Amino acid sequence: MMKRFLLFFALCLGTGRFAQAQNDSLLIRSIYEKALESHVAYNYLEYLSNRIGGRLSGSPQAAAAVEYMRAVMDTLPFDTVYLQPVMVPHWVRGDKEEARALSSYRGSISLRVCALGNSVGTGEGGISAPVVEVHSFDELKALGRKKVEGKIVFFNVPMKQHHIETFSAYGEAVRYRVSGASEAAKLGAVAVVVRSMGTALDDEPHTGALRYEQGVPAIPAVAISTRGAEQLSALLRQDPSTRLFIETHCRMLPDVLSYNVIGEVWGERRDTVIAVGGHLDAWDNGDGAHDDGAGCVQSVEAVRILRQLGVKPRYTWRVVLFMNEENGLRGGIEYARMVRERGEHHLLALESDAGGFSPRGFSFDMTPEHFRRIQNYLKNMLEPYGLHIFRLGGSGADISPLKGSATILAGLRPDSQRYFDYHHTAIDTFDKINRRELALGAAAMASLIYLANQGMLH
Amino acid sequence: MMKRFLLFFALCLGTGRFAQAQNDSLLIRSIYEKALESHVAYNYLEYLSNRIGGRLSGSPQAAAAVEYMRAVMDTLPFDTVYLQPVMVPHWVRGDKEEARALSSYRGSISLRVCALGNSVGTGEGGISAPVVEVHSFDELKALGRKKVEGKIVFFNVPMKQHHIETFSAYGEAVRYRVSGASEAAKLGAVAVVVRSMGTALDDEPHTGALRYEQGVPAIPAVAISTRGAEQLSALLRQDPSTRLFIETHCRMLPDVLSYNVIGEVWGERRDTVIAVGGHLDAWDNGDGAHDDGAGCVQSVEAVRILRQLGVKPRYTWRVVLFMNEENGLRGGIEYARMVRERGEHHLLALESDAGGFSPRGFSFDMTPEHFRRIQNYLKNMLEPYGLHIFRLGGSGADISPLKGSATILAGLRPDSQRYFDYHHTAIDTFDKINRRELALGAAAMASLIYLANQGMLH
Repeated sequence: MMKRFLLFFALCLGTGRFAQAQNDSLLIRSIYEKALESHVAYNYLEYLSNRIGGRLSGSPQAAAAVEYMRAVMDTLPFDTVYLQPVMVPHWVRGDKEEARALSSYRGSISLRVCALGNSVGTGEGGISAPVVEVHSFDELKALGRKKVEGKIVFFNVPMKQHHIETFSAYGEAVRYRVSGASEAAKLGAVAVVVRSMGTALDDEPHTGALRYEQGVPAIPAVAISTRGAEQLSALLRQDPSTRLFIETHCRMLPDVLSYNVIGEVWGERRDTVIAVGGHLDAWDNGDGAHDDGAGCVQSVEAVRILRQLGVKPRYTWRVVLFMNEENGLRGGIEYARMVRERGEHHLLALESDAGGFSPRGFSFDMTPEHFRRIQNYLKNMLEPYGLHIFRLGGSGADISPLKGSATILAGLRPDSQRYFDYHHTAIDTFDKINRRELALGAAAMASLIYLANQGMLH
Repeated sequence: MMKRFLLFFALCLGTGRFAQAQNDSLLIRSIYEKALESHVAYNYLEYLSNRIGGRLSGSPQAAAAVEYMRAVMDTLPFDTVYLQPVMVPHWVRGDKEEARALSSYRGSISLRVCALGNSVGTGEGGISAPVVEVHSFDELKALGRKKVEGKIVFFNVPMKQHHIETFSAYGEAVRYRVSGASEAAKLGAVAVVVRSMGTALDDEPHTGALRYEQGVPAIPAVAISTRGAEQLSALLRQDPSTRLFIETHCRMLPDVLSYNVIGEVWGERRDTVIAVGGHLDAWDNGDGAHDDGAGCVQSVEAVRILRQLGVKPRYTWRVVLFMNEENGLRGGIEYARMVRERGEHHLLALESDAGGFSPRGFSFDMTPEHFRRIQNYLKNMLEPYGLHIFRLGGSGADISPLKGSATILAGLRPDSQRYFDYHHTAIDTFDKINRRELALGAAAMASLIYLANQGMLH
């Protein structure tokens, strides 16, 4: 494989840049060796997951995670580590979330649900109402106010299995979680139950943010597990008069002060930045191991390895651990604001927020001409490491506000098959992490940063 | 992506074969849709893993697995399902396997071990002896008889982490499991302890076959978990006079009759075969979910889907579930013998025996000229499904005796990162299977069979 490489570069670049390409190849090999032998990122993630756990914005766990990651980065060769203040929403789940289906046919059946993030609660005493099951917004609208008013709307829209990448299925179905409550409220519904955004048929409800539309009544919203959705749907076929009882105590509190955690290595050109990050907040029901503890520790590990290998920073390398990706994106927005204020330019902003699974490649937001210029180079450099997917379109939520301040936005693309088994559930836990997969992701990220630093992605 | 496809075919093949390529593309898309929506293979594997479990050759579980898979295949549209008799070794683990380190420094410490497959046991009372730790056969030989005689040799050779594919690391290290006992016995050792073939640092000992060299005393051999190996090594540094006590009751019984399970769909050309399979036997300490229940159910699923889609068999399609891959390969050898006796030719023999993980591609044993002819075609057909690795060299153990009777031997190459966390351990269980990853493997296999059937791999 190495031979094919060298031949490729000799042919493409002429002997002038051949030595450079050869050096880059060898350096990338060293990055992978360091990463695959390291337990450092894995151990950081163990702490974030098992000892801190779910760290939703505004929670004591989020504050602990900020302190922990700052302390971690303080032990590493950054030139500066600091906290960027940002006001974040503070949503709390409360001490109760329950749902029961009440039918004449089967009696009372408990259903495993969890409140959707940002949702209002039902309060003490809960809500009990008949249920109307729908499979699309069109179907909901066709029912009209008469058939929806006073009812609980049950969005039973499975993620489609036929997509090869599960994010495509998520992209299609997630609108029911995000907008279902307001769409149903417009027709007078009193609450919504949303089938979980999961690819497995199991008993785990998946939380995640909803967004209430201004001027529309905010009604309570819960996610039901995929198996629970099948069960509820069957109950409704057996007895259409089945009622649902829902009680949730979640509520939104006033905004609180939190932080992005930032570490910088200063290069020759201080005002030109290569940024890498993930988000430090995570849903409260699980431990945020894959989403997105993995991305945080990979970002730190990528820079740690480059430092350990003595790579000379030509630009500022900046690790940014964003706060509040999950239910507000305030950290990403505030970071982009600071960048504009400082007049900095980002050569590359790279995010890992798709789980700590075997990396398959990168997706990019950049000009198509630029992408075409570097695509084959990347392929040839990184294919020996199992990275085959280099694609235009899609990078990461936290870095999306940087559009206009960055030449290249990039997202790590890990294998997506297992992601929606764990995403936003109680089982997004450290035991689901494979050390080598996590390390391969960190190595892929370090390699991309390295190539950007060497001017190879210009 | 589809557009790029069609353009590729239009340019490469001319309009004559363009319609064919377009049909093939659409058919492969249908295969993936069927596979990703199916729970069939997953449910078969649940039964094989959870209700039958470890099914080592000669065991009641192996017999149950033969009956179960025959019964399964009898419900599917095969033209015939039959059992091919084969005599297999019958090794049993016995009712005890224990190891303790006895040092003046730390007292008695239990170590988690398991006997290696085919090993003789120590018998009642066990063996107690000083330990000599080595890291290579060269180191062992350099020690010589004087320093080895009467001792227990501890092969502490970690699988190297720097390889991108874990099978490369396994290939390097497995010799100590296979040949360690005889190499140590040549110098008078009384037993061996082999560091487990695992990429994780954990407490699971990995069993697996050893081979005793003829004319060399057969001495007992156990695997120790990777963490146990670290612990034992530390103990030996603290107190070089540390002794090991080992007691195992494993033993080899006389050969017994077992079977390959075979199902056939008859095509226009009966004597030309496309075979697909995995091995039905599995180590007794786990449930053989990934190794190789996955390969068995994927093979059945691949043919089931092709039948369901109404693909017309031009050749004989044959599912072969091999018996005794783990500690003898008798099923694979007997199958190849039958093929030669019948004078059949295999157009393609495809094996899945690297776990039910996200498939990354295929490896092939065939002539380099032939491989070069089909490589780009395969890439273009299968890359949209996440299959990027098409490589010459390596197919599968069970089909390896078919060399000379087959034009193409192929092995499914799934992502290898997690395989050696589970391989030959007590935790190779059904909960480690992701339905979509398993299904993607089955779809990849069905696609390759389809292309062979259509004459596209000639």
